[in-house]
Amino acid sequence: MTKSHHKPIGIFDSGVGGLTVVRAVRAALPDEDIVYLGDSARVPYGSKSPETVTRYALSCARFLLRHDVKLLLVACNTATAHALPALMSAVTVPVIGAVEPGAEAALRASHTGQLGVIGTLGTIRSGAYEAAVRTLDPSAVVTGEACALLVPLAEEGWTDDDIAFHVARRYLGSLADRAPTIDTLVLGCTHYPLLSHVIALAAEQVFAHTVCLVDSATAMAGAARATLDGGAERRPPGSGGHLRCFVTDASRLGELAPRFLGEPLASYELVDLES
Amino acid sequence: MTKSHHKPIGIFDSGVGGLTVVRAVRAALPDEDIVYLGDSARVPYGSKSPETVTRYALSCARFLLRHDVKLLLVACNTATAHALPALMSAVTVPVIGAVEPGAEAALRASHTGQLGVIGTLGTIRSGAYEAAVRTLDPSAVVTGEACALLVPLAEEGWTDDDIAFHVARRYLGSLADRAPTIDTLVLGCTHYPLLSHVIALAAEQVFAHTVCLVDSATAMAGAARATLDGGAERRPPGSGGHLRCFVTDASRLGELAPRFLGEPLASYELVDLES
Repeated sequence: MTKSHHKPIGIFDSGVGGLTVVRAVRAALPDEDIVYLGDSARVPYGSKSPETVTRYALSCARFLLRHDVKLLLVACNTATAHALPALMSAVTVPVIGAVEPGAEAALRASHTGQLGVIGTLGTIRSGAYEAAVRTLDPSAVVTGEACALLVPLAEEGWTDDDIAFHVARRYLGSLADRAPTIDTLVLGCTHYPLLSHVIALAAEQVFAHTVCLVDSATAMAGAARATLDGGAERRPPGSGGHLRCFVTDASRLGELAPRFLGEPLASYELVDLES
Repeated sequence: MTKSHHKPIGIFDSGVGGLTVVRAVRAALPDEDIVYLGDSARVPYGSKSPETVTRYALSCARFLLRHDVKLLLVACNTATAHALPALMSAVTVPVIGAVEPGAEAALRASHTGQLGVIGTLGTIRSGAYEAAVRTLDPSAVVTGEACALLVPLAEEGWTDDDIAFHVARRYLGSLADRAPTIDTLVLGCTHYPLLSHVIALAAEQVFAHTVCLVDSATAMAGAARATLDGGAERRPPGSGGHLRCFVTDASRLGELAPRFLGEPLASYELVDLES
């Protein structure tokens, strides 16, 4: 039997976007082994119903539990928004979603308690960020904007040009019309860090003041470290740091994975969650 | 037992985009009953591997066969490109894919035999249009361009504005760099008819001559009529014309379906193909 602290951290996402979370976790916890699952055969989750997303998220979690993970990170904001309670009921290890760490980090960054969040349609419609923020600070106000085109833009690699800027500007313009006084904006989707440059430029144009961008991937990595430290479950230095990557579809993986992971993906294994 | 000509036509697509084919078939064959299946829980197919798309397409076809269809239309260009031979082997009714009718229509429209095709990454990488055109006319030349952002633009409803125009212009500009002399362009994806206005405008700017747009949905409807006429399988006038619609995820259906169908969707049924 594997000693508890030697077990890997499990991380799943609807596709390759969650590799931004892997990257942040590896930076924060370089000795930990990670088992990653990207459900790329059923990506995206962001436009699908809560029922479908919950079914998919549970099948991802069951897969990672079979790899004996000590901690489960739900990298996907949409899966967190729709399925976190179901996931917490279904597994016995600690579960960290994408929303609460991002909400906490946003409240720490904000001076005014006026927060914005951008994400997929599913994440925004769920109201998950509003609920998480209000639990922490009932006086804070959260305004959300669904940005369906940002994921395909990031996957197309059009991340730093006129089209990306105008798309970001249109979404943030709509957000600013409804919430002109926000001082902090949560990037509530694993793909958005790739677009942070144009999002920052668009925010600068649209809001008449500085808006701080909060990346939920970094916030999740901090939450993972705190959870392991709380339970004395960290792996000893120098003993691990391996990444094992599973995907349900490998199309474009070689091209996309390095953009999100920040380095080439050494290897991957293909799995079928539907049979 | 249902008389053969009273049986419905089965049409499937990765999502709601195939309702453009339903619309064209209803215009061409108003007395036929149609059973439609949109695999919206696993949409899109266009960015996924041939193996995944073939598995999904076969499960869609099996579902429609259980509804005793007399003819199967594969509205999805990507599913046609990857899975048509597998589908033809698996079913006993005639199968019409999206590619061959579009290729035929393009050859009829072209004066020069220099054709362009735009579609998903899967459709373009498959070379399916090139293969279909060369079978019909070995002297014709087909150049393809994958346009990953056009489907999300159509679904976001940004179909007739500056951003849509600039996205279309960038893709067609890349196509024109490689194939400046095309005189016919196939819209090789169910979603693209919604963007035909900006695609036509972009083509006008990018090419120094007239380029004829060919919509594969209309071409498929013509092929369906010819197939039924060939086998004397048309339903008697005034006896049918009903549409029964199944989807695997209903999120955004009420908002999206009318854009593709051209009228409100009266009702739908939710099914799970994965259990």
